Amino acid sequence: MSKNTGLNAIEMQYLRLSLGLTTEQVANLSAASNEDVLAWEAGTQEAPVPLQKKLLDIDDIIEMQVLNTTDGIEELFKKEPKRRLAFVVYPTQALYTQYNPEFLSSLPLTELYNTAAWRIKKECKLLLEVDVSLVALDAEAYKAYRADTGASESRAKWAATQL
Amino acid sequence: MSKNTGLNAIEMQYLRLSLGLTTEQVANLSAASNEDVLAWEAGTQEAPVPLQKKLLDIDDIIEMQVLNTTDGIEELFKKEPKRRLAFVVYPTQALYTQYNPEFLSSLPLTELYNTAAWRIKKECKLLLEVDVSLVALDAEAYKAYRADTGASESRAKWAATQL
Repeated sequence: MSKNTGLNAIEMQYLRLSLGLTTEQVANLSAASNEDVLAWEAGTQEAPVPLQKKLLDIDDIIEMQVLNTTDGIEELFKKEPKRRLAFVVYPTQALYTQYNPEFLSSLPLTELYNTAAWRIKKECKLLLEVDVSLVALDAEAYKAYRADTGASESRAKWAATQL
Repeated sequence: MSKNTGLNAIEMQYLRLSLGLTTEQVANLSAASNEDVLAWEAGTQEAPVPLQKKLLDIDDIIEMQVLNTTDGIEELFKKEPKRRLAFVVYPTQALYTQYNPEFLSSLPLTELYNTAAWRIKKECKLLLEVDVSLVALDAEAYKAYRADTGASESRAKWAATQL
């Protein structure tokens, strides 16, 4: 067990789990091997401090996104109250990369974005008593919707039709 | 995708991940098969409502524990400020069951207890600027500590020696 102020083995494990990541995904984020990640979580190797910091930073970014989005929804509901809201998430990395590239530098994996979305859903329920549904983007259905309606690019509008 | 107000496939998946559980563990909690859980998360089967409720209740219990413990630590620090605190967690289900049986009815798996501990650590950092370390119970070291010091049952005191 580390005596410094860094994360110890079980903390590394629960940080990873709370982000919704597998050991393989953490390995890829840090150019380490899956065996390394397992060793960090077993306490037989210490996780590199830059990687600890990277995962903690990602968790902070997610918390900030939860805060900002929940605030945004609170504002929205002051003008236009409704009890349900749809929030698009991405079922695969390919769709996330294609449709949501602006998040890739801060939240590189679709799992991280979806984890943020889940926390937003929880926070909206708890603080605002608003039901947010996570709607997994269905690219074919979305294209058909845009072709049918002539709608401009708006995943949020499509998602609302899925409730 | 479900049209009702229950959890849809991706929500079931991220609820499970946020609790730190595997699909096998969710299957065991609900007397379903692992294949069932995979089908719920793929959207090819709907998760039974009682099980949805059970997982959401567990998440609520964890949030309540986070709130109560963070409040308790805030009180403690008013009287006796210190910058670091140890919080015992359980590396295996056997140790959790043996040493922490009072939690089994509300949080049956050590992973759920440890997920709560991780969230407590985060909340204490964020709200109180207090560093909480999760200390995995080492039963042999704990027994040796009690034999050496003649200390009565206090995992918290032992954990503090591990910082």
